[in-house]
Formats: sequence, C-alpha cells, structure tokens
Amino acid sequence: MSDLHWPDLFWPGDERAGDHFGQEAFVRALVAVEEDWLARLGQPADLQSLVSRRHLERLANESEGGGNPVIGLVEMLRDGLTGDAARWLHRGLTSQDVLDSALMRMAEDAVDDLRADVSRLGGALTARATAHRDTPMVARTLTQHAVPTTFGLRVAQWLAAVVDADEQLAALRFPDQLGGAAGTRAAMVELGLEVDLEPVPWHTVRTPVTRLGDALVTTTDALARIANDVLVMSRPEIAELAEGMPGGSSTMPGKANPVLSVQVRRAALTTPQLAATLHVAAASQVDDRADGGWHVEWATLRDLVRRTLTAAGQCEELISGLEVHADRMAATLAASHDAVHAEQRSMTTLTGRPPLPSYDGQAGAIVDVVVLRAQRHWRTP
Amino acid sequence: MSDLHWPDLFWPGDERAGDHFGQEAFVRALVAVEEDWLARLGQPADLQSLVSRRHLERLANESEGGGNPVIGLVEMLRDGLTGDAARWLHRGLTSQDVLDSALMRMAEDAVDDLRADVSRLGGALTARATAHRDTPMVARTLTQHAVPTTFGLRVAQWLAAVVDADEQLAALRFPDQLGGAAGTRAAMVELGLEVDLEPVPWHTVRTPVTRLGDALVTTTDALARIANDVLVMSRPEIAELAEGMPGGSSTMPGKANPVLSVQVRRAALTTPQLAATLHVAAASQVDDRADGGWHVEWATLRDLVRRTLTAAGQCEELISGLEVHADRMAATLAASHDAVHAEQRSMTTLTGRPPLPSYDGQAGAIVDVVVLRAQRHWRTP
Amino acid sequence: MSDLHWPDLFWPGDERAGDHFGQEAFVRALVAVEEDWLARLGQPADLQSLVSRRHLERLANESEGGGNPVIGLVEMLRDGLTGDAARWLHRGLTSQDVLDSALMRMAEDAVDDLRADVSRLGGALTARATAHRDTPMVARTLTQHAVPTTFGLRVAQWLAAVVDADEQLAALRFPDQLGGAAGTRAAMVELGLEVDLEPVPWHTVRTPVTRLGDALVTTTDALARIANDVLVMSRPEIAELAEGMPGGSSTMPGKANPVLSVQVRRAALTTPQLAATLHVAAASQVDDRADGGWHVEWATLRDLVRRTLTAAGQCEELISGLEVHADRMAATLAASHDAVHAEQRSMTTLTGRPPLPSYDGQAGAIVDVVVLRAQRHWRTP
Amino acid sequence: MSDLHWPDLFWPGDERAGDHFGQEAFVRALVAVEEDWLARLGQPADLQSLVSRRHLERLANESEGGGNPVIGLVEMLRDGLTGDAARWLHRGLTSQDVLDSALMRMAEDAVDDLRADVSRLGGALTARATAHRDTPMVARTLTQHAVPTTFGLRVAQWLAAVVDADEQLAALRFPDQLGGAAGTRAAMVELGLEVDLEPVPWHTVRTPVTRLGDALVTTTDALARIANDVLVMSRPEIAELAEGMPGGSSTMPGKANPVLSVQVRRAALTTPQLAATLHVAAASQVDDRADGGWHVEWATLRDLVRRTLTAAGQCEELISGLEVHADRMAATLAASHDAVHAEQRSMTTLTGRPPLPSYDGQAGAIVDVVVLRAQRHWRTP
Repeated sequence: MSDLHWPDLFWPGDERAGDHFGQEAFVRALVAVEEDWLARLGQPADLQSLVSRRHLERLANESEGGGNPVIGLVEMLRDGLTGDAARWLHRGLTSQDVLDSALMRMAEDAVDDLRADVSRLGGALTARATAHRDTPMVARTLTQHAVPTTFGLRVAQWLAAVVDADEQLAALRFPDQLGGAAGTRAAMVELGLEVDLEPVPWHTVRTPVTRLGDALVTTTDALARIANDVLVMSRPEIAELAEGMPGGSSTMPGKANPVLSVQVRRAALTTPQLAATLHVAAASQVDDRADGGWHVEWATLRDLVRRTLTAAGQCEELISGLEVHADRMAATLAASHDAVHAEQRSMTTLTGRPPLPSYDGQAGAIVDVVVLRAQRHWRTP
Repeated sequence: MSDLHWPDLFWPGDERAGDHFGQEAFVRALVAVEEDWLARLGQPADLQSLVSRRHLERLANESEGGGNPVIGLVEMLRDGLTGDAARWLHRGLTSQDVLDSALMRMAEDAVDDLRADVSRLGGALTARATAHRDTPMVARTLTQHAVPTTFGLRVAQWLAAVVDADEQLAALRFPDQLGGAAGTRAAMVELGLEVDLEPVPWHTVRTPVTRLGDALVTTTDALARIANDVLVMSRPEIAELAEGMPGGSSTMPGKANPVLSVQVRRAALTTPQLAATLHVAAASQVDDRADGGWHVEWATLRDLVRRTLTAAGQCEELISGLEVHADRMAATLAASHDAVHAEQRSMTTLTGRPPLPSYDGQAGAIVDVVVLRAQRHWRTP
Repeated sequence: MSDLHWPDLFWPGDERAGDHFGQEAFVRALVAVEEDWLARLGQPADLQSLVSRRHLERLANESEGGGNPVIGLVEMLRDGLTGDAARWLHRGLTSQDVLDSALMRMAEDAVDDLRADVSRLGGALTARATAHRDTPMVARTLTQHAVPTTFGLRVAQWLAAVVDADEQLAALRFPDQLGGAAGTRAAMVELGLEVDLEPVPWHTVRTPVTRLGDALVTTTDALARIANDVLVMSRPEIAELAEGMPGGSSTMPGKANPVLSVQVRRAALTTPQLAATLHVAAASQVDDRADGGWHVEWATLRDLVRRTLTAAGQCEELISGLEVHADRMAATLAASHDAVHAEQRSMTTLTGRPPLPSYDGQAGAIVDVVVLRAQRHWRTP
Repeated sequence: MSDLHWPDLFWPGDERAGDHFGQEAFVRALVAVEEDWLARLGQPADLQSLVSRRHLERLANESEGGGNPVIGLVEMLRDGLTGDAARWLHRGLTSQDVLDSALMRMAEDAVDDLRADVSRLGGALTARATAHRDTPMVARTLTQHAVPTTFGLRVAQWLAAVVDADEQLAALRFPDQLGGAAGTRAAMVELGLEVDLEPVPWHTVRTPVTRLGDALVTTTDALARIANDVLVMSRPEIAELAEGMPGGSSTMPGKANPVLSVQVRRAALTTPQLAATLHVAAASQVDDRADGGWHVEWATLRDLVRRTLTAAGQCEELISGLEVHADRMAATLAASHDAVHAEQRSMTTLTGRPPLPSYDGQAGAIVDVVVLRAQRHWRTP
C-alpha cells in the first residue's frame, strides 16, 4: 500500500506528523495484531500482504456495519487465507482487543517520534537559555513592565514546562489489550492458551488513553507558552524577538508574519477540548464494552497525536531559527518607566543599605538549575 | 480532480458525509472565490481547470509557510495564467477573504444537505409519533418506572428536539467575507470597485462561525437523545425497541448490536467540545486578524460538519428501521410495580372522585401539538 | 431572609452579579413556583414567609437525599401549612417542574439585567466609534503592522460582535415547565385542571437551556474580543489605549495594570467549556428524566450567568473609562514600516492611476453602517 | 471567623466537601502564607487574629480593583499591625506568590482528605470483589448480552480504575510559590535573604495546576464508571443491583431513585471541561504573569476539588450500601439468549475437545491480581 494520508489543507503543517495514525498505518497496525495472535495460535502467516488499497476502501465502507473496522477486516483476511490459518484467525480475540492494541502500538510509535522532537526542542532551549543567561530584559506582568529580568530566565521557564511535559510522556505505558469477548479470556482458556495475567484487560478502564491525552495536551500547553511570548515580543513595537523564517502575505509585499508561532498557538487552543473528550468518554464507560464512549477515542486520539507532533516540530524550528535582539531588550529596559525601579528603592528604604549593583536576584542561578535538570532528564552533557 | 477524501477508518460511517469539507472540495471552493472575484475585476477566466491533484500536494506542502493555503494557491494560479488575468488575480483581497468565503460556501452546501437529512428524519419521527400516539408504555425517570405514558409521547419529545435544532440550522447565515488586507476595503476602493457595504467585513467578529457550531451541536444533542433511548430500550431485559439492522460481533455469532445508536451517541460526545473550541477561538480574536484564533476554525468546522452529517444520516436510518415492540411495552406496564399507580391513587384521595379510566393526561394532545408544529415547520401535509 | 450570597474571593468582581442565582434567590424562585401553583389549585397562601435562613441550611442538607432541593422544600412548606393548603401543595407537579421553572425565572431576570448592561456597553461603544470614526491607526494582522485603518473601525468591530450577542440574548425564551411526574400532565387532568397545551413539557428537550448557554458564551466572546485589544494596545511599547482606573501592584509602586481587561478575558476562557457542559448534558438526556444530565445544569448555569453579568459590567466600565491616545496612534502609523504602504503601491502600479489621498477605503462608511445597526437594535436616536 | 461556606443548593451533596476551598479557608491560607513569610523576615506576628468576617466582605469588594484578593488583604493586615511588622509585611513577595502558595496548601489538604475517601472506597470495592469473586453474571457489551462473566470481575474493573486514579493523586506535588515581582527573587536577595533555589518559581509554568486537574478528573472518571453500572443494573427490568438508601419522589410514593449514582455521574459530566479550562489557561500563559490565564484557575480548581470530594464520598457510601442480587444475576444468565453460549461452541468446534465445565476463563484470577494490587497500593493486609 502506498500512503493514503493526504496533506490536510485544513491544518497547515499536518504533513509533519508523517503517517502516524494515518489510514494505512491504522490498517497495518490492526493486521499486525492479528498476525502476532495467529502466530501465537501456531498458525504463522503473512497477513500484511493480503491487504491492498482496494481492500481499504471496501473496509471503510463496511466499518459502519459493525461499528468498528475490525469485523470487516477479519472477514477480508479470512477470505485471503486457506486451511487452518483461515479457521484459527482471530480466535479468542474480540474486536476491541485488536483495535485497542493497534491504537496503543501506533501511540507508542508516535510518542517515540514526539519525544525525539521534544528532545531536540529541549536541546535548542538549553542552548538559548545558556547563551542568554545574563541578557538583561524588562519583565512583563499583566502586560506591563515590571522589574528587570533576563531573557535566559524566560527561556528557562519555557524549558521547565517542556521538561515537565516530557516527564509525562516518558511515564506513559502502552499496554496490549487481551481480554476476549467480555474481558474474561474465556475463549483463550478454552483454546488451551497460556496467557499472562498482566496487564489485565482494560476494556472499560481507560486510564492508558486519558493519560496519553493528558500528556499530549500538557505538551501543547508548554509549546504554546513559548509561542505566545514570541507573538508578543515580535510585535513591531517590541521587536525583541523575530522568527527566523517568517511567512509572507498574499497582498502586502514585505510583511513578515510569525507563522510558526501562530500555528503552534492554534494547536494548543484545540487540544484541551480533545483531551476533555477522552475524559468524557472515560466517564461514559459502562458494562463490559461501552456504547459509544469507546468509539469516541479513535479519531480524537488521532487528532491529538498529529497536532502535537506538528506543533512540536514547528516549535523546534521556531526556536532554532529564533532571532534574539539583545540590544533592543537592553534599550527597552533602559527606557522603562519608573515602576521598574520602584521596587528596589522600596527595599533599600526598608534595609537602609545601598542597592545591590544588579537587581536580577537569582535569575542566573535559576537558569543553571533548570538547565541542569534538562541535561539530567535527557542525559546530555 | 477525483475525490481525495478517503474513507476514515477512525470514524466509521464518515463516508456518509460525502465530500463535504473534503480536501478537493476545499480547493474548489477557494478557487471559485478567486474566480468570481477575477470576473468582478473584469478578467473572467477558468481557474478550476488550472488545478490538478498534483498541485494539491504541492499546495499542502506550501500551506505551512504562509500559515494558510491561500498564499500558495494564488501563486500557483498566477503561474497558470498569462497577461492581465495573471496581473489582476486576487487583487484587492486578503487570504482571509478567500478562506472565510470558501468556508461559508462549503458550510452552506453542507447545511443544505444536513437539513435534507434532518427533514427526512423529521418525517420518519412524525410517522412514528402518529402511529404510536396511543401506544401505552411505562415512563422512566431517573432510570426507575414512573407513571404510564405513551411511546408516541416519547417520540414527540424526540421530534420536538429535532425541530428545535432545525430552527437553528434554518436561521444560519453564510456571509461572504470581503474586507481586504485589514477590513477597510482600501485596495478595492483604490481599484475603483463598487462594493456593497453589507455584509460588513467580519474578520474578527466570528458569530457566523460560532452560530454554525452551536446549531450543529444542538443537532447532535437531539440525535443523541434519540440514540440514548434506543440503547436503553433495546437492552435484552427491556426489549421494547430494536434496531432494524443491528451489527454483528467478531467473535459471538448471533449477537445483535445497536450499532447505529452507538455511532450517533459517539458523535454527540465529541461535538460539544468542538463547538467550545470555536468559542475559545472567538474569544481569542484580537487585532485585525487573530494570531491563531482564526486558524483553529477550519479543521474544527470540518469535523463538526462531517460528524453531524454522518450522525443525521445514521439516525434517519435508525428511525426508519426501528422495530417497536408494543406488546412488550404493554407487558412491562402491566407488570410495573406499585409506584406507577401510587400517584393516581393519591390524586383521587385528594379529590374524592373516582379515578379517570386512563392516566395518561394530555399525552395524545401533546403528540398532536408537536406533530402539527413539525408539519408546519417542514410545510408537510 | 437576608442575602446569603457571599462575595466570591475566587472570582473577583463576582459581587457585580448581585444575588442573581444566589442561594436565597433560588429558594425564593422555587417557593414562588409552588405559590403560584397553589393559587391555581384554589388554595392561595403566602409561602415565602414560611422559609427562613434556618430552613435554608436544613434544606441544603436534605437536598442530597432526593437528588434535588425540591423534595425537602415541599416537606418543609407542608410542615408550615395546615388544612387544605397543606394537602394541595405541589399536587400535580413533579420536582423537575418546580426546579426548571425556577431556573427559567431566575434566568429571565438575569438576562434582563445583563441586557441592560450590554445596552449601556453598546451605547458607550457607539459613542466611541462615532468619536473616533476618522482617527487613523495602523492595522495589525497576525501581530504585525498592516495597512492603515481607523480606531473607529476597530470599535465598530467590537460593537458588531456585541450587537450579534445581544440579538441572541433577545431571542431567548424562558418557558415554564409543567409536565407532572412524567411529562403527561396526568395528575393535573386527574385533578380536573385546565392546562394550556403550550409550551409542551420539555423535561428532556433542553434547548431552552443550551440556547441560553450559547447566548451567554457568545456574549463573553464579544467582551473578550474587546479586552484582548485593550490588553495589547495598552502594552507600554504600544500605549495607544489605557484603562481609566488601572489596578496597582502589591509590591511595585506605580505599576498600572489593566485589571478590568484581565478579568473580562478570564471569564471568556471559562465560559466555552461551561456551555459545552450544557450540551454534554443535553446529549445525555434519556428516558423521561435524565439520570445526571439534568442535575448538571443548575450550577453550570449559575456560573455562566454570574460570570457573564460580571464581565459585562466590567467591560462597560472599561469602555466608559478608556483612554484613547490618538496622537500615539498617529505616531505609530507614521513610523510604520514599509509594508503598510506596499499594498497601495502595488494597486497603483496595477491601475496606472495616482494613489487616492487616503488609503482607508470604506472604513468610515462601515463605522456608519454598524453604528446605525446598533441604534436600530437598541432603538436609540 | 465562623464558616462562611454555605450549603450549595445548586449542587446537592456539596456539604460533603466541608470547608475545603471555602471563602474563609482561602483567607486563612493566604494569611498563613503571609504569616510564615513575616516570620522568615524576623518579624513573627499573629496575623490570623487580625482578620474577621467583617474584613472578609470588605476584602471581596476590593479584590476586583487589584484583580486578586492579595493586594487588599496586605493593606488590611498592614492596617492592623504597627512598627516593624507593618513595614516588613509581604516584603519580597508578589501577590501571585501568596495566592499560588495558598492554593497549593488548600489543594494538599483537600487531596489528603480525598485520598482518605478514595482509600475507604478502595477498601469497600476490595471487599465486594472478593465476596463476589465467583458470582456468575452475564457480561454486557454494546448493551447486549455477551458471554458469562462474574460480578467480582466487574467490581475488579471498577477497583482498577480507582487505583489508577489514586496513583495520580499520590504523585501530585504542591510546591510553594516564591518568585517575587517577576520570578527573579530580586527583592529577596536585596533584603539579604537566603532562599533555596528549588522549587524554582513557576509563575507561568502551570504543570502543578494542570496535573492536579488531570488527577481529579481521572478520579471522577473512575467514580462515574461505577455509577453508570449501578444506574443500568438497578433498572427494574435488570434489578441485579440496588442502592441501599435510594431517594424518594416528590409526587410518586414508593419510588426508589438511585440518587447517589445520579449525583456521582453528574460530577463526571462537568469535570472534564473544568480540567480542560485549566489547560486552556496553561496554554494562555505569556510574559512573566499572564493576563487572565492565571486568574482562571482559582474558581476552576475550587469547583474541581469540591465536586470530586463530594463524588468520592457519595460513591463510597454507594458501594458500602450497595445491594447485590446474585440470584437475579444467576437467573438472567440462565435465561440469556443463545449468543452467550455461541462463542464457546465455536471454540470447541475448533479444538475438537469437549467444552470446559465453566466458561469464565481467568475471571477469578484477574480479580485476585487486581485485589492484590489494591492491597499493595494501600498497604492493607
């Protein structure tokens, strides 16, 4: 099969997510689960070769009838097999076993790639934080100038959020699903199979899915926090930052738009609701297989995964190419209004001691702490 | 171009939505907007023929660079034109004009088809409500048996919600967007064009989008309310309803799953969050073109539209094929526990009059009122 | 009863919402529904005087037992009555009739007050749009300078969104709920009462609730859109706008924070999810009274209503006190980079005609159209 | 101060959450943070005694002016102090330090109590799973009868989800916030204080907040999953379960409503959107203190915490009192239609061996594994 995942014009940049959770990747993962199981039943066979693009269309058209694509897929695979393999295919499994296992395998692959992107982003942020550890800048709180800070400390805040997110990604587990018709594994036992008790079936315990969703949205939270700052600081009146490869306009020659930041921010305005949908689905679990709560997850996970992958790639490119105008930062700080210095004066009034030469407190030391944490997290030198 | 909208295995039934908001439909709509505008500039040209599937791929890959697909599309179209048409193409417009107008045209087409589905559903519900106007059934409140009701009244409640939703769909407006670079129409005036003042530009006033989202989610609310009842009443212990064409199981021969209801319910667990995303986007509008809030809308609308179309088609099929077991309803009512009759007794104690022969109050008359409302709404006899 | 609605330190400004949807207001509304019904049963009695603050506490503690406060309230009222009034109290009603009717009455009162606030805001915006109809300003798209515009046009965009929202508020209906135990009105008929057929019972058709939620969130969308612009334009580097009464800092003397804008924006980041919750609840309707979907609505509506009221009051105050620095707008426009003028040059190259003296197109005329629409909407001169 | 947290009639059962995140608890926590800091500045003083209920009202009315309650609180406390304590109060802190630290302290207390409730629930579930390890029951998938299972396995699924949730609760961290005006701790250093570097300031890195929200919603997911099953299985036609203390009706004597389940389910339909709001807020972080994204958190956390506490208490009571009708389960299974046995027949056809005497596979062993995991998690014998 060639790749059927077309570029998505409704979500520019989507191609960055490759074929993760694409239509063909989904079928391949479903078939791989059946193939592994058939081997375990003592009937090894090459099932992947039985599926062509033509089948894919038929499969989609039949998915509605069973409420999921597995029922049609099993029929299709059985049609392509003969003898014992045909008879044993899928025996002992239920469609949710195959679908959940396939989702988890796709998710694990996607999170691997995502973590590689996030690691590159972490490296780029570490370099920036270190380079600008002592670059003075005015702090901004509630949009207004506050006391002095450093650009390095700002980047360290970005980095801390990214490390937090990656900790959640690293802690994810992607269990296979193996429960049989109702989670008792009765058919497997009937067939005389030895099946490990753990992981126990999780047909209606959806924590593996909600934790994945929560980790992904925590990732886009961290990415958007970076993008938001670039969007503010690349405004022409501020001009302390600029995207390295800004986008153009269809009508205004010379306009330079922070398009990577815009697209990263876009993702993070949608993922909280997608993760919430996974929780609504988890809270709708009932019986031994839910009547809708399960079916919600597939497309929702797909969108969460692809958007997070896309945003991570865009954000890494954003940071790698980011132009930092330290001179402008210094000029803004120098020209900042009185409030920036008022706090220090009130402290010296209190202590009766002369002011310290700089008023950036632990800024540099905090940068060092965060950078060290990132290096340990990613085991970089 | 042939249709690039592949069946979506992550959302069984998605093919019911046809090519509404498909990749090619999107490009065709964008090109149509440019074509209309070029004609208005006095340079009529066939632009649709300039776009092939090959272009589509290139276009997707270039969309990220501009943050939206219009910039690349204009370049591509200009490459295919010569002379004045090439020079005048897109003049006066901004990419948001083209994209918003295309979205609204696609939305109008989709809502037309959706309303046709909803109308068919309304017809099927009207027929059911009429046929079962006097079919006795036990009411259920907080899952427990309450006083007697009729199945006709239950269907009338389904119908009332569907008419409510269709009223919102019918009230939607799909304005063209025509504002130029910043909503002032300066370039149009500079070019000497006469442009109607209304509709005024709505680059950052997103009520046309949020109202569409709210109407769509109101529609799936109504559809899910039906599906939920079918899911409860087709449980084997209740067995008062059954889907006409239930789904099978991959491992349990003979199992009959209410798959249409499951899939309708699925949609309605996701659309509230999608509509919320459109409001988050509207609340993130800023400046004269938003830095992310706008970009959120495209894929979100696509998913809302396609899922609502799919659910409406499924629900219409569900109602058309629904098996109603009036005998079972009667048996359940006859066997129902004492609480079902306790209220009537407490009323007759109060009035001192003998009980009325039936205890279904205005049930039949309410059915008549709702049916009449539906008939007036859809101008059916 | 004195007012038990305490100021909410978790939501500064909440006191602006007065006692709308407060604890006592809720009880008063529930009692009023019972009182009206008792009169209709021919047993007029003053029920409000039967409820004291002491009862309120007892009531709350008993609400959980019935799943809603009506069951305990009816017992409490019956304890305070004697003779026929005690016997007839609540007869024919179900607790949902009382609760839904009370919610709708509270909602109608709150929307009345909200629309008064919104009308004042509309007046303030109209005045600003008119006063700055021709105040030049640089447009900003995707955070970057675009072509010239006017501050009047910006305000007109704010105004257009507010009028859109108020149209939705004006179209709301607040039906009484009158269905009896299962929506058949059987007990009412048994009691010999004449009850109008319309509005028909809507125990499980929640469009009155979701439309209210959608109108409220559309209102906060419009308010946040204003706040976002003030937050950007009052940044010290831009300084084209400033709040009239900014907030102070706990540690930096002299800092002036745009606190009204911050709090308005805050509201709009929460209301989309609250409105989505109402849709999730609507999509969870089932049977003749839902097993949770109904109960979700009460607190959710309360929060939506109070936050919208608070934000509307804050936004009106924000606009009334807003400082507009037209000189700064002019200076920014004059100093703006080349892209601002590039579009006009490309148009004159195209036409071969000299440039028009101004490049603001229909900006003034659009302001006039929007102002006229607002005046017609609110019937102001 | 006496407790100002009034019972909430809009959320029956809310009083179960005690004064967690109540108005007075909030003030006490804010004052405690100031008190601890003042001691650290070498000026120990009893600040709690300076705050009365009268102050609380004034405080609420002043909170809007600063955008948060800390600014007014500091003024009020300073008014009550004299000499050095008045001069040193709050020096070095910013209002976000005080507010975030207070939120985290309140959250830690609340999560402690929540975990105690969850532990009791876990104990009750463990007992039920053990008692019904071998109680046969028909499985239900997609609402229809499937193969046999046991009630013990169903309870084990409930328990597994609860343990998953408690693992997330146990992993939470509640860091103090200590950053000063812009997160640099400049004022602290200026004052000559030694401040530990870790935890580093997290003014705009909101992972402690989003993780808390995600853990709470994961908890209500698990609780609702239980409630959903009770709601289905206590339907009169199924009657395999019943609440021990059902609720009554305001009009139908003798009706027994599963009100605890209804209220637990209610909570879980709202919390996903509240947790999503915390992520929207996290994704709206910008600068060194966010212009709205921060302010969103306070009331949202309050509602999440109180609703989860209430639901956990209700669910524990639900399970403790749950009536299990094993005879009815057995009868349903015996009468179940053919599909329940069809799978086993197809397996024996495949193997050619006689059927195993029971067809519940690893059901009992899975119960044992889950129970053991719960016992280890809570260190119970």
